[in-house]
Amino acid sequence: MEKNSISQHISHQFNEELEDVRNKVLAMGGLVEEQVVYSMESLVTGNVEQAELVISRDYQVNAMEVAIDEESVQILARRQPAAGDLRLLIAVIKTITDLERIGDQAERIGRMAIHLAEMERPKSQYTELANMGERVRTMLHGALDAFARMDAEAAVSVAQQDAKVDSEYDAIMRQMITFMMEDPRNVRRTLDIMWSARALERIGDHACNICEYVIYLVKGKDVRHTSLEQMEKEVRE
Amino acid sequence: MEKNSISQHISHQFNEELEDVRNKVLAMGGLVEEQVVYSMESLVTGNVEQAELVISRDYQVNAMEVAIDEESVQILARRQPAAGDLRLLIAVIKTITDLERIGDQAERIGRMAIHLAEMERPKSQYTELANMGERVRTMLHGALDAFARMDAEAAVSVAQQDAKVDSEYDAIMRQMITFMMEDPRNVRRTLDIMWSARALERIGDHACNICEYVIYLVKGKDVRHTSLEQMEKEVRE
Repeated sequence: MEKNSISQHISHQFNEELEDVRNKVLAMGGLVEEQVVYSMESLVTGNVEQAELVISRDYQVNAMEVAIDEESVQILARRQPAAGDLRLLIAVIKTITDLERIGDQAERIGRMAIHLAEMERPKSQYTELANMGERVRTMLHGALDAFARMDAEAAVSVAQQDAKVDSEYDAIMRQMITFMMEDPRNVRRTLDIMWSARALERIGDHACNICEYVIYLVKGKDVRHTSLEQMEKEVRE
Repeated sequence: MEKNSISQHISHQFNEELEDVRNKVLAMGGLVEEQVVYSMESLVTGNVEQAELVISRDYQVNAMEVAIDEESVQILARRQPAAGDLRLLIAVIKTITDLERIGDQAERIGRMAIHLAEMERPKSQYTELANMGERVRTMLHGALDAFARMDAEAAVSVAQQDAKVDSEYDAIMRQMITFMMEDPRNVRRTLDIMWSARALERIGDHACNICEYVIYLVKGKDVRHTSLEQMEKEVRE
């Protein structure tokens, strides 16, 4: 009996450790999502202070990545988990890398926002970028939500949204090339918008990566580099 | 005695498994390095066939990532390694993610090479890009070499080269902006060169990431998001 109660105690502690790591990932995700929202707001409104806040907070994102990474490796070393628990920790280690890179992209958008705030601001050019930003933020939120609920089907439907992000990106690129050709004085401003669109497109890709880790975590199947149809099939099985 | 010989046998098998994973990472690294070299050659010479080869081989890089990832997680589950062996497997899982993304960038350069092959080719614009490509390839080679030899000092000196890559990147960007402003007909070609330079700059960053994993592996210290000076100090200690 006593041995049983000790092992129950250990397993209870272990579950708490895993829960703690999961919560920290979600907290990091929440901060990163806020960084994306703030960076886009600062870009669209020309709010330099907000852009500077995003840039100055990137170190928090980095610190969270390092702390969660260390905690996960320590749990791996101490608990030697198998099956689902091992997959959770591997998924965590990968997810935080993508979250950190989303943070880098938000910082990059913040820097563009500061450049762009000093220039002429034709509103029409920002509308489409703002729409793309909103779609990408929704994807990131959905990916984190799928991670929180360990919901593989939700992860697939988030990943499906990436095609729309890519087509919005292509449309913005075409539009910007036209602006540049029409008037060379547009070159610098237009390049900054292009780089921002590119950063958003990358954020969409990172959100998809997180969805793939959720599917790996729940289903034990590596769906990277497979088609969306294949991904759906694996999740339904 | 018998028990001892069994445990020696197991430990011998375990070492062989780790050695096998390490070798596979180096083989993947070799393929990725070749992809970078070929993509840059095709960009500079306008060789479309070579660019197509790079694009068609990217699936091999992806397949290697998935296979090595699976093998590493299986070893984690079965062997429950601690300390250095655990760090090796974590470093492997992270390194192959960066290698896969370097592969993606090489594929991207291959696509630019095909676009650019159809356009006018002012040689001067490719010289600096070719130089930057050579520097990035040297970094990647050095990072893989540091990984193979588990040489933390070599990893630091590779990471130090990234500042030169960044300044070459900035110089190419400034030059391209000038070209665009001089003649709007240059816009499309110049953008492709910019995207290629950007891809090279990213490859440099990924090579630096690999160096950081080597330092983590050898020294057990996470040097991400620290300065180069800090990195050097940690390695010397």
